[in-house]
Amino acid sequence: MGIFETRDNTLYFDGVSTTWLAAEFGTPLYVFSKTEIVKRIAEIKKEFLYKHKNTRVAYASKAFLTLAMCRVVEEQGLSLDVVSGGELYTAIRAGFPTERIEFHGNNKSYAELEMAIEYGVGHIIIDAFDELSVIEELCERYGKTVKVLYRITPEVDADTHRHISTGGKGSKFGFSMEESVIYPLLKEAIDSEYVTLAGIHFHVGSQLFENAGHLQALKKALALFKGVRDRYGYELPEINVGGGFGIAYTSEDERKSFGYFLDPIMEETERFCRANGLTRPTIVTEPGRSIVGESGITLYTVGSVKEIEGVRTYVSVDGGMSDNIRPALYGAKYEGMIANKANAIPTTTVTVCGKCCESGDKLIKDALFVEAQRGDILAVFSTGAYGYSMANNYNKQPIPAAVMVEEGKARLIVKRQSYYDLIRNELLPEHDGARTLAVVAAVS
Amino acid sequence: MGIFETRDNTLYFDGVSTTWLAAEFGTPLYVFSKTEIVKRIAEIKKEFLYKHKNTRVAYASKAFLTLAMCRVVEEQGLSLDVVSGGELYTAIRAGFPTERIEFHGNNKSYAELEMAIEYGVGHIIIDAFDELSVIEELCERYGKTVKVLYRITPEVDADTHRHISTGGKGSKFGFSMEESVIYPLLKEAIDSEYVTLAGIHFHVGSQLFENAGHLQALKKALALFKGVRDRYGYELPEINVGGGFGIAYTSEDERKSFGYFLDPIMEETERFCRANGLTRPTIVTEPGRSIVGESGITLYTVGSVKEIEGVRTYVSVDGGMSDNIRPALYGAKYEGMIANKANAIPTTTVTVCGKCCESGDKLIKDALFVEAQRGDILAVFSTGAYGYSMANNYNKQPIPAAVMVEEGKARLIVKRQSYYDLIRNELLPEHDGARTLAVVAAVS
Repeated sequence: MGIFETRDNTLYFDGVSTTWLAAEFGTPLYVFSKTEIVKRIAEIKKEFLYKHKNTRVAYASKAFLTLAMCRVVEEQGLSLDVVSGGELYTAIRAGFPTERIEFHGNNKSYAELEMAIEYGVGHIIIDAFDELSVIEELCERYGKTVKVLYRITPEVDADTHRHISTGGKGSKFGFSMEESVIYPLLKEAIDSEYVTLAGIHFHVGSQLFENAGHLQALKKALALFKGVRDRYGYELPEINVGGGFGIAYTSEDERKSFGYFLDPIMEETERFCRANGLTRPTIVTEPGRSIVGESGITLYTVGSVKEIEGVRTYVSVDGGMSDNIRPALYGAKYEGMIANKANAIPTTTVTVCGKCCESGDKLIKDALFVEAQRGDILAVFSTGAYGYSMANNYNKQPIPAAVMVEEGKARLIVKRQSYYDLIRNELLPEHDGARTLAVVAAVS
Repeated sequence: MGIFETRDNTLYFDGVSTTWLAAEFGTPLYVFSKTEIVKRIAEIKKEFLYKHKNTRVAYASKAFLTLAMCRVVEEQGLSLDVVSGGELYTAIRAGFPTERIEFHGNNKSYAELEMAIEYGVGHIIIDAFDELSVIEELCERYGKTVKVLYRITPEVDADTHRHISTGGKGSKFGFSMEESVIYPLLKEAIDSEYVTLAGIHFHVGSQLFENAGHLQALKKALALFKGVRDRYGYELPEINVGGGFGIAYTSEDERKSFGYFLDPIMEETERFCRANGLTRPTIVTEPGRSIVGESGITLYTVGSVKEIEGVRTYVSVDGGMSDNIRPALYGAKYEGMIANKANAIPTTTVTVCGKCCESGDKLIKDALFVEAQRGDILAVFSTGAYGYSMANNYNKQPIPAAVMVEEGKARLIVKRQSYYDLIRNELLPEHDGARTLAVVAAVS
């Protein structure tokens, strides 16, 4: 069963006892299997990078980014897709080669673009009407050039949660494909002395199980690709098809292979290019969740168990929506088990809830579990994506630690927040000059 | 217009220019009006604390808690309702008198209860079957006693968002009012040599505009109050009726007075006690949002403005769901304005979105605004509750600074997170001993 095993009635994850992890590092605890991350990366290399020439994979940081994760992405030879100054800073601090960074965002600030140019980010995906002019100004100032792509709105409504369907016409992301909108933008970049127009980018949505959205969007991108050649004699070097490949959160989800999504993209692109006398552009994809989602689990300690006669039994854990907001935010479903009773047969239907002061703070609703008691270790699966990255201090809960495990070894990659961390930036009038500003009289 | 004024075409908040605040402290910026907070507290004092004897008000920290806010609550003489070790720690670090703290939570840990007992918290609201025994053990160890209340599930379905309706029968909060469940629990506390049974607590839900839920729940609590006297000859000293008083997020919301909720509670309690020969218990209430919600605004800087012909215009700001997740989480509605064009008439329908890489990252949908340009300061109103407290580092966005303003003066109460803060707890193998643990071989 791969990275999950049972030994001595205990769940092991990538060769490491989950109860030992809980005892050693405390709970709640994010645990990432490096073996699984590397395996997923190996899959996309085999099914895409090595199978097709002129391809690139950029890991989508927003799913999970820490210094240690940057290092894994670097070792594995992938590029890195970042969406903010904070993600870019993290990559730089981890020593990630900046020329392999692709910088996204619908509203990049001047300071963020300046950091990107100054540090030599490889690609910037433009998504605002006035963004090119800022990039040009910065390129001139820093004596640099940069490759740019334009994000387009493919006008495809992907079959997913409305919050994470990003390719529809009304999306905040991308530029309209109306000729009067997109062509002048691309022409401006072609003519720029500071940037190289590298291509176009689209992203259909997230957590998808069907490839139809990608293919629809691709066809529109290819038409634009040809249109640019026809109008301006310029062949775009690359098309970035985004990510959005669904993973299995529960046993009801059937994960599709990377090839399922990417093979038809390559076929259609090659067919189209042959038919139209175009050089097949580099195809770039941006998997995030599909690399880390199933590679992470969260360990909790069971606290209160409350049976409400005739309604349900609540098993409370020591985390909740502060470390995994996805059930409250998207109605996301998860599965889990009592990790220290791995051989027992689940017979009780329970709802696993968190300790936050809010009814929406449920992690798993009405699922079969082994009978749980205070002190048991409860594992929730497939929490590797958007758990740590959306973690918050609601109810002043510290953000959990994170550990990376690999074949029986464990390494702390994120220290648990201390209570002091929660108030580190909070000030009182008596705090000394180093920690506070004096009362400032407002100018009118 | 109270704390909002227009001077020189600029929005002023509690006497301070919002554009000056944005320039001085940067954006996104949480701004709290101390005048408004104190005014709301004065209202509940007038309409409840001073109007009725034997009453207590505990500010519900989860809405917004910082060291500075603890200080305001203390100065104003209110008690403090905390729901976690982190909130308790914050109160202790602010020097808040611990005997005025009431400690809630459906799943308090041993360590949290230990902190509460050790530091002499005044009231603990019990919400787990085995909680009393832990409290007793700790009281013995530390040579302390503590007042306890039991949270009951009033089985009232409040008319609000399902995430924040907390009083229904299926709620994770509270104990069933079935006689076989609640009476033995209360009897155990009456008989305990370590604790004093102070009473019962209920909370109906949040953001309510009708008092019917509170009254229904109160009637059940009063019946239990009488039942305890009849069975055990013990009159509970207090009933805690929770909070949940709705505020005006938009001009469509009509905020009710504290008296609207609390007067009928007092009347019914007094009538019931007279009719049944009971001493009227102390009535405690826990307002949070209704104190700070309308006392806070968020200032943003406008970045990209993107008109999608025939669909909508997006005005992007430099924050979003990382500093205010309520629109994405609850579909919460807000209103706002361009603060540096305060005299202009709004004529354009726009959607205000954030900079997070997610379609759900919208703050205000399809609302009338003055024409916005890059660099404008956009104010969103009524963000004082659950903005800072649910803030997160999604997309590695730093958590904004917070400022408290009062009659023309401004004081920084939360420093903006730096990029370094984002990776402060993240480790790489080469980090020295002070920052990392060595690779640990897992024991089997």
